[in-house]
Order: sequence, then C-alpha cells, then structure tokens
Amino acid sequence: MLAAHPDLAGKAARAGALTAESTAEQASAGLDRLTEDEYAAFHRLNDAYQHKHGIPFIVCVRRHTKASILTQFERRLANDSATEHATALDEVFRIAALRLDQLVAAPDKLPLAGRLSTHVLDTHGGTPAKGIPLTLFEIGPGDARRVVAQTVTNHDGRTDGPLIGGRPVPIGTYELVFEVGAYFAARGVALADPPFLDTVPLRFSVAEAEGHYHVPLLVTPWSFSTYRGS
Amino acid sequence: MLAAHPDLAGKAARAGALTAESTAEQASAGLDRLTEDEYAAFHRLNDAYQHKHGIPFIVCVRRHTKASILTQFERRLANDSATEHATALDEVFRIAALRLDQLVAAPDKLPLAGRLSTHVLDTHGGTPAKGIPLTLFEIGPGDARRVVAQTVTNHDGRTDGPLIGGRPVPIGTYELVFEVGAYFAARGVALADPPFLDTVPLRFSVAEAEGHYHVPLLVTPWSFSTYRGS
Amino acid sequence: MLAAHPDLAGKAARAGALTAESTAEQASAGLDRLTEDEYAAFHRLNDAYQHKHGIPFIVCVRRHTKASILTQFERRLANDSATEHATALDEVFRIAALRLDQLVAAPDKLPLAGRLSTHVLDTHGGTPAKGIPLTLFEIGPGDARRVVAQTVTNHDGRTDGPLIGGRPVPIGTYELVFEVGAYFAARGVALADPPFLDTVPLRFSVAEAEGHYHVPLLVTPWSFSTYRGS
Amino acid sequence: MLAAHPDLAGKAARAGALTAESTAEQASAGLDRLTEDEYAAFHRLNDAYQHKHGIPFIVCVRRHTKASILTQFERRLANDSATEHATALDEVFRIAALRLDQLVAAPDKLPLAGRLSTHVLDTHGGTPAKGIPLTLFEIGPGDARRVVAQTVTNHDGRTDGPLIGGRPVPIGTYELVFEVGAYFAARGVALADPPFLDTVPLRFSVAEAEGHYHVPLLVTPWSFSTYRGS
Repeated sequence: MLAAHPDLAGKAARAGALTAESTAEQASAGLDRLTEDEYAAFHRLNDAYQHKHGIPFIVCVRRHTKASILTQFERRLANDSATEHATALDEVFRIAALRLDQLVAAPDKLPLAGRLSTHVLDTHGGTPAKGIPLTLFEIGPGDARRVVAQTVTNHDGRTDGPLIGGRPVPIGTYELVFEVGAYFAARGVALADPPFLDTVPLRFSVAEAEGHYHVPLLVTPWSFSTYRGS
Repeated sequence: MLAAHPDLAGKAARAGALTAESTAEQASAGLDRLTEDEYAAFHRLNDAYQHKHGIPFIVCVRRHTKASILTQFERRLANDSATEHATALDEVFRIAALRLDQLVAAPDKLPLAGRLSTHVLDTHGGTPAKGIPLTLFEIGPGDARRVVAQTVTNHDGRTDGPLIGGRPVPIGTYELVFEVGAYFAARGVALADPPFLDTVPLRFSVAEAEGHYHVPLLVTPWSFSTYRGS
Repeated sequence: MLAAHPDLAGKAARAGALTAESTAEQASAGLDRLTEDEYAAFHRLNDAYQHKHGIPFIVCVRRHTKASILTQFERRLANDSATEHATALDEVFRIAALRLDQLVAAPDKLPLAGRLSTHVLDTHGGTPAKGIPLTLFEIGPGDARRVVAQTVTNHDGRTDGPLIGGRPVPIGTYELVFEVGAYFAARGVALADPPFLDTVPLRFSVAEAEGHYHVPLLVTPWSFSTYRGS
Repeated sequence: MLAAHPDLAGKAARAGALTAESTAEQASAGLDRLTEDEYAAFHRLNDAYQHKHGIPFIVCVRRHTKASILTQFERRLANDSATEHATALDEVFRIAALRLDQLVAAPDKLPLAGRLSTHVLDTHGGTPAKGIPLTLFEIGPGDARRVVAQTVTNHDGRTDGPLIGGRPVPIGTYELVFEVGAYFAARGVALADPPFLDTVPLRFSVAEAEGHYHVPLLVTPWSFSTYRGS
C-alpha cells in the first residue's frame, strides 16, 4: 500500500495526475514552485530512498516547509528500512488525520493545528502599538524568502487573526519583519536621521508543527526584545 | 576652488586620475564598486547638481555609506545654492580634518572618530558568551549587503577591537548577525530541532558618524534583546 | 446636598453610623484601619477642607488607596471652591455609578472596572512558568505594605483570575513579588548558592483606576524584565 | 592554633579585646551591630560548634554578610569534624591573604577582590541616564535593610567608582534601588500621575565574593530589565 503513494514533487505532480488534496498539500509547502535544481534534488533523493527502503518517501507536507522536507529527506534516507516503514505509516496517519479534520467534527480529535501569532508593545509610550505593518517570510534554502502573511497591527497591537492558524505551522525558519520607524515618527517622537530602528526583523524557527508560537515585539526607538511566548 | 574638486564617482575616478587619498576615501564608501546603473545615477545627480549650484557635489565620503550618499545627494540638490556653497565648505573642512588626523598629533583635535562595538551576554547561563561568530553587514540600496567585519567573541563576550573604530562610522544601515545556535548546543543546552534561535540578525542605523554605538545582544535559546548603549 | 455627605474616615464611621455601602467602600481603601496619627491627619484635612470650600471632602474611595486619598486631599485643598464643587459632583457620580453597577444590567454602562493581571514567562526554558507563588502588596505611606492578593501561577504562567478585577484598580503604588528561586531549582537548573534571583519584586503605580494593567515577568535565573502590557 | 582563634561576635569583641584588624573585619559584616537576639543566636551556635568540632567557628567575615554567616554556621555545624578542620584552615588562609593584601604588593597574589557595579541606560531616550540617585541596601535576616552605598549616576550612566570594589563582595542578598521618576519628569517626558515607574528596586544575591557583578538597569517610563553582566 505504501508503495502506491505518489512520489513527492514527482512525475505525477508534474503531469497533473494527483488528487485535488495532494495538489493542495504539495502547494502548501511550495513543492509546486521548485526550480529545476530543486526538482532534480528531490528526484535524486526519491530514487535513492525508494531504492534503499523499497517505498516512496512519505511525509505529511502540511507540517513542513520546503527546507525542512529536504532535511527530513536526508535524515530518513540514512535510517534503516524497518524504522522508515514505521515512520511512513505515522506520516500516512498524519496526512489522513489532517484530511479528515476538514470533513468531520468529533469531540476527541487529535491536536492537528498549531498557531503562530505576534503582538507589538510600544514600551516608549506604554501602549499597544497600533498600525505597524508587518510581514512574515518563510526562509528557504539559500536564504530565499517567501511571503507567508502580511498585515497591520490593530488597536490592541495584535493582528486580527493569527499569522498562521487552524492548520499545522510548517516546521522551518521564519523572519517576522516590522516597520517601526514610521510608527514612532507619526507619534511625534524625535528620532535620529536615519532612525536607529526602522525595519526590525525577528528570525526564529518552528520545531513543533502543532505548537503555539507567540513571538511578540517590545520596542522603543532605541531598543527591542522578543521571546517565545505561548 | 570648490569648482575644481573632482566629481564623486566621476570620470577622474574611472580614469585613475585621483590622488591616493581620494581613491582610498571613495573606496571606503564602496564608490569604486558601483554597478552601471549606480554609476549612471551618480553621473545624472552630479550633472544636475553642478548645473544648479555651479560647483561639484562635495561630501566627506568617509562619514557615509553608498546609500546615505545617494540620500544626501537628493536632499542637497533641492537646497538653494547659498546653502550648498556653505555645506560644501563644511564638507571640505571635514575631509581635510580627517586627512590631517592621519598626519599630526595635537591636543585640541576635533572629534573625528566614532565607534561601533558589540557584546554578547548569555542570560541563560549568566555569563559572557564566548566563541560566538558574528558578521557586520552594511545594507545598501535594494537590500544589497556587504561584509564590513567578521569576528568571534572572546572570553568576555566582546570582540578584541571595535567593529568600526579609529575613524567615522559611515552613516547608513547595518545588520549585525550572530550565530547563537551552535554556542548553546556546545554548552549542552537542550534545544528544539531546529533551535528556536540560531542565526540572530540585529538591524539598526547609524546617524552620527562620530558617535559611539554599542549594540549588545542579550540572549537565551528562547529570547533576545538589544539596545543602543554607549 | 453635598454638605450632607459624611466625612471621610470621620466620626460617623467611628460611631458606626454609616450605611453598609459606605462602610464597605471605606474599608476597601483601608480607611477602617487608620492609625491614630493617620486618623488625626484625615481629621485636620477634613476640617481645613470644609472650612475653605464649605463642603466635606468627597472622593470615590473605591478608586483609591489610602496613600492616593491623602495626595488628593492635599491637592484639592489648594484648589478654588468653584473647582472643588464641580469635582465633588463628579465624585458623587462615580460613587453612584459604582453602587448602581452592582444592582443593574444595562447595555451602555460607563466603564467602571479596571483590571490588574500578570503572567510569568520562563525565558530560560522557553515556556510559561507554572507554580510560581506570588503576592501583590499595596505600598502605603511610610512604605507600609498590605497584602492585596496571593496566588500561584497556573500551567499557562497566568493566575486563574485577575489580581484585581470587576472593580476599579485603586490608584496607588504596588509591589508584585514572585518566588522564582524554588521554581528553577525544581526544574534542575544549576543555580548559584544563594541563587542570583530568588525573590523578585516589581514595583509600579496605577494611575487610571479603570485601566487594564498587565504586568508580566520574563525571567531566567540571571535576568528579568517587565513592562506595562494591556 | 585554631583553638586560640577568638569567637565570632563573642566575648572578646564585646570586651574590646580584639586586634584592630579583627574589629574592622567583624564590623564589615555588621557583627558589631547585633541585636540581643542575634547575639544570643551566635553564642548558642558558637558553643554547639565548639562542643562538636573542638575548635571555634572560623570564617572570613569580609566575604560575608550577617545573613550568610548564619547560613554558613548552620551548615558547617552539621559537617563532620575532619571537614570542619580543613574548612577552618582554608578560612584562616583567606583571612591572612586579605590582611596581607593590604600590606604587600606582589605579582602573583591570589584574587581577593570582587566588584559590584551598575549602569543605567535610558532606552526611552537612547542615552545613558545621568543624575539617577541610587542606593544599595544589604538585606539581612527578617528583611532588615542596611545602606551599603548611596550615589548618583554620572554623565555615562555609571557611578564614579564601583558600588563595592577593592575587597570581597560580601556573600548575601542586596537591593539596588533607583529613583527614575524624577529623571524622566525632568526630561519633559509625559508621565502618568503617579508615574508607572518611580522607585525601581532590583533584588539579587551574591554567591562568589571574588566575582564581578555588573547589575545594570535598562529603563523607560513603562518597562525595565536587568541581568547579571560582568
């Protein structure tokens, strides 16, 4: 049964022969936007994996970024086949659970969704920072960046919804970039020219796709801090 | 006299007709590494400035980055010519003071040198963080980055010398990037996989070329903060 | 009408001639626990105020601590009588609004309740700090301290309810004291002996009785920070 | 020889029969200012210790506060006598080394002096905070507090000398109290009334008498943080 699973980023995807669900899942990790080099790398790894373990490489892509899939691929290629058969089954269960989650309501469902949220506190003025534009980037191999979310903080210094929510938070590296210079200028704060802080990037990684990651920014024109909250 | 000053990034530079000092100064701001587009932009601004104000655009390049020279160029082009003649004289004095500073010793010299330094404190272990690799990048137009300094923290969590010292700190935007993941792993701290914090960038700008900028990093595996110190 | 209002901490209170509501209100600010000196001070101020302005001193005591009532008394004694008559009416409205709030439900009620809450984040372990004992003290004149709330953080690092909620937060100075040493020791963290941080006090003041004050503690065995959140 | 050592806080001290050095040392830990109860406690512990181990309790008092001497007393009473004879010798060497240190200069002296310092950074204004009054208290048994140092920050936000330096930093608990409210008011910052932060206490303990403890305050009108620096 496992052997019948389509290759990741494989010929079936290229040929449009996947189910709608597979297509959406592979898109969520950016597997539909591979460069020729990345496509070739996936292809090589798929072949090596299939040759060594006798099954295609199976991973629940909704829990991953392109970068973490590549990391998983290399680690799991090195495992023994018994381990990989067990891991492949686990991943099939995760894929199934996530697909079913969109169809059924039940009191005892597995935790499937994580959450990534933020909050900007202006510790210069002692208030939530309203109107700060922010962008969440996924950082891929070679520092390539892809916009995941783009929004503006509300009157409570938060975003109206979580940056990622209602689904696993893909395992990977992110940069959350805040535009604070214009905010302080608009409040009439005397700033240096150029201001000491203008664009503030916070770089961090997600390791638990079902975890709650709260990554706030506490900021003045001259200092900032962040932490993993919950 | 001002009219005889060579163009910034101009034909004399291209033809190698500058003095050694002018060459070194223009190199310090990256004016010897212009793309064709940047060269054309400088050329256009030089012509417009010369046409409006009757003198070449003069700026003490050792106090600037390529990005801040372009900003200055556009602002000063908009000024009236009386203002610009005065500004040009000021800049000539700054250039002369910096050149002389390398030749003479005197008790009442103008403050010419700024300083940019850092310090890494491991607030997880309560100790200075030794052995953290760090890189200082200058961020140019279009987010182009150029390595300005690269070093490793010593047993006191500091760098052996300032990142920039004994000269003006060029006005511009910088990113100071610290590799903290390997440091905590080497100390046997249990980390997530991938670690929440691995590569930590701090982005900030310098507005006073003669100022003292101390930009420390206080860091645990789950939080960090920075501020402008002195 | 204003002239018929009972004296604050006055003879009626001592004689038990107040309504149940007045008694509860005066108790909320500690006016039923005055020393002889404090009683004499209130008495002197009451007389001087009545003599100057022709009305008793009226203040909505549920919005105040003993210390801030004394501050108000001295400031308002210095005002002119027209200002004080207006202020006294405002305070009567506040008292009435708070009393009515306990009796009626309406869609357009004035905001009467503030909130004081906290949250402990362990930025050494990257998790909410569970099981931290904490005490909220009100700091009175002469640094006298009175316990206002005492509790332990839950699994989310928060307290099960707000420290003060459903009523105005009395204007005044507070100390929120956290016992963090035992928490880190119980988690097996290697600590100094005695630990660098054991009992952590955070001292702050409340100025808006109807405001939301969130005063979190971010803490490692070697560092901590706080800020006014919302 | 050890048996001839005078009792700590004992009859010889009361009778003025100690050498000048012993007197100064015992004063440094506040042993010349014991209450009757504390004197009785020391007496009881001295007798029990002498009875169990056959020597008086010897400790290098310049490395301790009254509170940490009591803690040491109770711990060391519980040890076996061989351990205590060795410990007593160590302490005699420490006492001798500190006394000699005041008399001789040598290139290979043991590290005898620790240091306690502070630094106030105004992260609202992005500058060192000048003119902040601060007091260092030693916190004794029963939260009794004794002023150890009192000073004002200079133009660099530091104190002109270390708060404790050129000697061991007595092991014990301290509170460093900063008056920040007047500082921000004097700079024209709009503050709440009363200000959210006015008197800021930082409580911490010293465990290594020869260590360097740098305990800075980073502060805005609405937030503050501290950490153990070096």
